Amino acid sequence: MRGRFITFEGGEGAGKSTQISFLAAALEAQGLPVLQTREPGGSPGAEEIRGLLVRGEAGRWDGVSETLLLYAARRNHLQTVILPALEQGRWVLCDRFNDSTLAYQGYGRGLAMDWLDSLYQAVSEGLQPDLTLYIDVPVEVGLARAGRRGDDENRFEGLADSFHLKIRRGFQEIVRNNPDRCATIDGMGSVDEIRRVILETVLSRLPHHGR
Amino acid sequence: MRGRFITFEGGEGAGKSTQISFLAAALEAQGLPVLQTREPGGSPGAEEIRGLLVRGEAGRWDGVSETLLLYAARRNHLQTVILPALEQGRWVLCDRFNDSTLAYQGYGRGLAMDWLDSLYQAVSEGLQPDLTLYIDVPVEVGLARAGRRGDDENRFEGLADSFHLKIRRGFQEIVRNNPDRCATIDGMGSVDEIRRVILETVLSRLPHHGR
Repeated sequence: MRGRFITFEGGEGAGKSTQISFLAAALEAQGLPVLQTREPGGSPGAEEIRGLLVRGEAGRWDGVSETLLLYAARRNHLQTVILPALEQGRWVLCDRFNDSTLAYQGYGRGLAMDWLDSLYQAVSEGLQPDLTLYIDVPVEVGLARAGRRGDDENRFEGLADSFHLKIRRGFQEIVRNNPDRCATIDGMGSVDEIRRVILETVLSRLPHHGR
Repeated sequence: MRGRFITFEGGEGAGKSTQISFLAAALEAQGLPVLQTREPGGSPGAEEIRGLLVRGEAGRWDGVSETLLLYAARRNHLQTVILPALEQGRWVLCDRFNDSTLAYQGYGRGLAMDWLDSLYQAVSEGLQPDLTLYIDVPVEVGLARAGRRGDDENRFEGLADSFHLKIRRGFQEIVRNNPDRCATIDGMGSVDEIRRVILETVLSRLPHHGR
């Protein structure tokens, strides 16, 4: 039986990676085979492209180059990791996917949405996540958390609050436009509350029989 | 005054890089400022993308990823090197450009031409070379020359002759479809004969007053 494809989306500091690990453990406890992955990256080739995107000075790539690199990476990730894992029956949990490109490059940087859609079509051949969990937190909360984390790949964290506000509104609009695929998770609860809401959402939206 | 943009195209071993150097020297001797560059690559960012394309095993990128990487590199090269040089009045001589993508990825690998055209439009915003010199040699001659050169970036040279034949026919069709922009240079003459034909072609197609 084909696996399920679940993507986690949200702004900086939304708590995605923590919650992906919790969900992976919960699904594995039910006997389901799980693959955790991330974008940009997730396959050896795509991680090399990620390296080009996150290294070096901010603004070294203009929006068009950046977008083409993201879709080149997504293609490689889909072809070499995500699709084979789904074929093998694994549940694929991905930290960011196409909605992040729509939010950051489309709503944030202003690239044409129909161009992004045509690129997604070209690399995905129509595949959509079975479920997208958008973890929503106010911009100032997410940025404060991301700042505390202090990783060195924060190419977006230095941008103005107005940019992050556009991204949050973008994610919210994507969820409104895709209610069957997307669910909003309130990211302001405790880590444990969010963990439970996510698990309930997954079990109700993607009913399954553990092995 | 804006500079001129001349691209050199051809299969493996056509002699492009030798002839670019000759033309650069001839134009400089007339007092024209010249920039020699190449694709994929030609700018720091695009050369990094070239590294991803030519390193590693053949076939590590599928045609879609490869094409997106090529256009990401082309965008960076255009924005950071070619367009600024043309604005400064320099004559830009480029070893391979978009016609190579049409020939290799389109005619050779079978990617949809209208998709390649839409990507070129997105990265170039309509800029076309002022002149494209296609150096035509039979496949077996070009491959024999390229083999002698023995560089380590020969990711296409190991492919079947039928692939190179498709590429040659592709270049020939591109020239037929774009007679105002393109000129075919017979690559079977002596290096010196080809040098003279190229210089005559440039002077007649792009009349100018040296400085």
